[in-house]
Amino acid sequence: MIKRAPADVGMTLTEIDTPALLIDLEIFESNLNQMADNAKSLGVRLRPHAKMHKSADVAQAQIARGAVGVCCQKVSEAECLIDAGIHNILITNQVVGKRKLDLFVELSMRSELTICVDNAQNISDLNACAASRNTKVGVLVEVDVGGERCGVPSGEPTLELATQITQSLNLKFLGLQAYKGTAQNQREFGDRENASSVISGYLKETIELLKEHGITCKNVTGAGTGTWQFEGASNIFTELQPGSYAFMDADYARNKNSDGKTASEFGHSLFVYTTVMSAVHSDYVVVDAGLKSLAFDAGMPLVADDWTVNYHTPSDEHGVLDLSNSTRRYALGEKVRLIPGHCDPTVNLHDWYIGVRGDLVESVWTVTARGAVF
Amino acid sequence: MIKRAPADVGMTLTEIDTPALLIDLEIFESNLNQMADNAKSLGVRLRPHAKMHKSADVAQAQIARGAVGVCCQKVSEAECLIDAGIHNILITNQVVGKRKLDLFVELSMRSELTICVDNAQNISDLNACAASRNTKVGVLVEVDVGGERCGVPSGEPTLELATQITQSLNLKFLGLQAYKGTAQNQREFGDRENASSVISGYLKETIELLKEHGITCKNVTGAGTGTWQFEGASNIFTELQPGSYAFMDADYARNKNSDGKTASEFGHSLFVYTTVMSAVHSDYVVVDAGLKSLAFDAGMPLVADDWTVNYHTPSDEHGVLDLSNSTRRYALGEKVRLIPGHCDPTVNLHDWYIGVRGDLVESVWTVTARGAVF
Repeated sequence: MIKRAPADVGMTLTEIDTPALLIDLEIFESNLNQMADNAKSLGVRLRPHAKMHKSADVAQAQIARGAVGVCCQKVSEAECLIDAGIHNILITNQVVGKRKLDLFVELSMRSELTICVDNAQNISDLNACAASRNTKVGVLVEVDVGGERCGVPSGEPTLELATQITQSLNLKFLGLQAYKGTAQNQREFGDRENASSVISGYLKETIELLKEHGITCKNVTGAGTGTWQFEGASNIFTELQPGSYAFMDADYARNKNSDGKTASEFGHSLFVYTTVMSAVHSDYVVVDAGLKSLAFDAGMPLVADDWTVNYHTPSDEHGVLDLSNSTRRYALGEKVRLIPGHCDPTVNLHDWYIGVRGDLVESVWTVTARGAVF
Repeated sequence: MIKRAPADVGMTLTEIDTPALLIDLEIFESNLNQMADNAKSLGVRLRPHAKMHKSADVAQAQIARGAVGVCCQKVSEAECLIDAGIHNILITNQVVGKRKLDLFVELSMRSELTICVDNAQNISDLNACAASRNTKVGVLVEVDVGGERCGVPSGEPTLELATQITQSLNLKFLGLQAYKGTAQNQREFGDRENASSVISGYLKETIELLKEHGITCKNVTGAGTGTWQFEGASNIFTELQPGSYAFMDADYARNKNSDGKTASEFGHSLFVYTTVMSAVHSDYVVVDAGLKSLAFDAGMPLVADDWTVNYHTPSDEHGVLDLSNSTRRYALGEKVRLIPGHCDPTVNLHDWYIGVRGDLVESVWTVTARGAVF
């Protein structure tokens, strides 16, 4: 990691070096409180997804507000967080290969670590690995609910794997995971609600089928920032996994509510702070944040404090601000806050979070698991 | 950085953990030799761009073959390489802000480090910073040759800045930089040739104008992997800055030669190695490399060893391989080499390079300046 952080505690906003990942702590804390309250009202557990923030500090802040733990997507990501003191983690993903399984089992012996599976051979490999260490690990079956990614179909295929797990001496069957990524960003409220209802339908039947075979689903986990309210009210899900609500990116902010409007109860708390580094032309300036400071898979970042300016044409270390519709000018050295299109891969580009309250830097946190892709 | 590398020297290919950045050393070395020979034949200096590889090991391999040094895009990137023993670096970019300028001047006192400018205030700031340390730094004016990014227009605006530099006690005027990123990936040979010819035309007039005012351009630097042959033969450019030729990505491989064909003298030497982690369906499998292991700004990665398979729908840590046109199946745990769409931002996602010769891991290098965005 880059050893020098872009700011020190006590600096003012304009003293921060760029590009830097800023957290507006007031909005961030409000987002955390809001989701904690929501989960409590719905009577479900909250296990926020740490693949989004990759930070032990953020995870601690979530756990302090009642989250049961966090989710990770990779074993190495969980390792970074466990080493930093986070001890209750669900890996919401398949873990394949001896080296990864060995690490998973080793970590599960010093933390409360569970895992998802969708393959019989993988279950055998995991069981053998746990047996070789004389331990028992907790496993959920991932159910494919139309996400066209991982998971086995609901019904019989899920029953088969669950049965195999219950018959494996070194595995504990904990329940089901079901997550449909593509449902999260459907813009219309009704479309997300329908998608979630279909998911819950699949799960209900499968849970009953498992019950008929004497297998209890203690936990049913899933949902994201786009659908948590539906899974939370489903009476099927016991646990919600939203991640982005803590920071809110430009993409999630495009989701509509039941009234057709886009206003969210979660505010933008994450920004990429950037400097005007070339100001030769009157109709555009160039800023120092490009493909290596921002993710573009969900479109361009937004200019937070001037909606008349558009960011475009990123290259590795540059972006262009189109000023043709703006009434104000941007001087060389001026700093601008950008709202990332997609927070997860944007965070993964940075080594540091700079927490800001008002005009002052209050915290400097590492992005604990940045680059933990194994 | 992630401390555990995905492989150790001596391992076989299939033992490498994934996702991992692989270098096929035979092709890589051939690419380096080829470009070194090209520059020599053209009678120009070669200064490869290290923003692409961010590696002191790769830079050393280039310098060992005759490169005069390397380029960087950021001061912190140069700092990482200087600390790792690379001592001749041109920052092909504007450096704005006191903290960055201070670091630049400090580094220039312990290496051969030069910089580009496009702004009078920035020149004053740089001069003041160098004066405060009682040193003198080498500066090039960046000329805007239609790239719609940084640089001042050719002719009078360039003369003005060059004059200011020659009149600044703590600056040395070294010459001009001109680079048009958008010309590099024009697919037709003739279009790239024309773009380069226009650039050289602008520069020729400007060099003459400067000469009339008693200012000599010792160095004219620019070009990339798409246009080096034209700038190299221009009799204007003294130095070439290509980066991607060392690895070649899927995007550059789409450029056509004068015969209308795409075969390049540079081969694909960089791969993201990935594992099949979910294999539930017959028409697709899921691999463990997504938005956090690959850059997508230049499109999807290619499956290196099976052109009938398409990678699609990346999410943070997943990608889908469409097998509907493939005659072979992909088993759980099978490993696949992907050719990145764009190498620069892909490399920046990884902490390690795994150098492979034949079936064996020969080298494990760090990505020295990964994340050096300041």
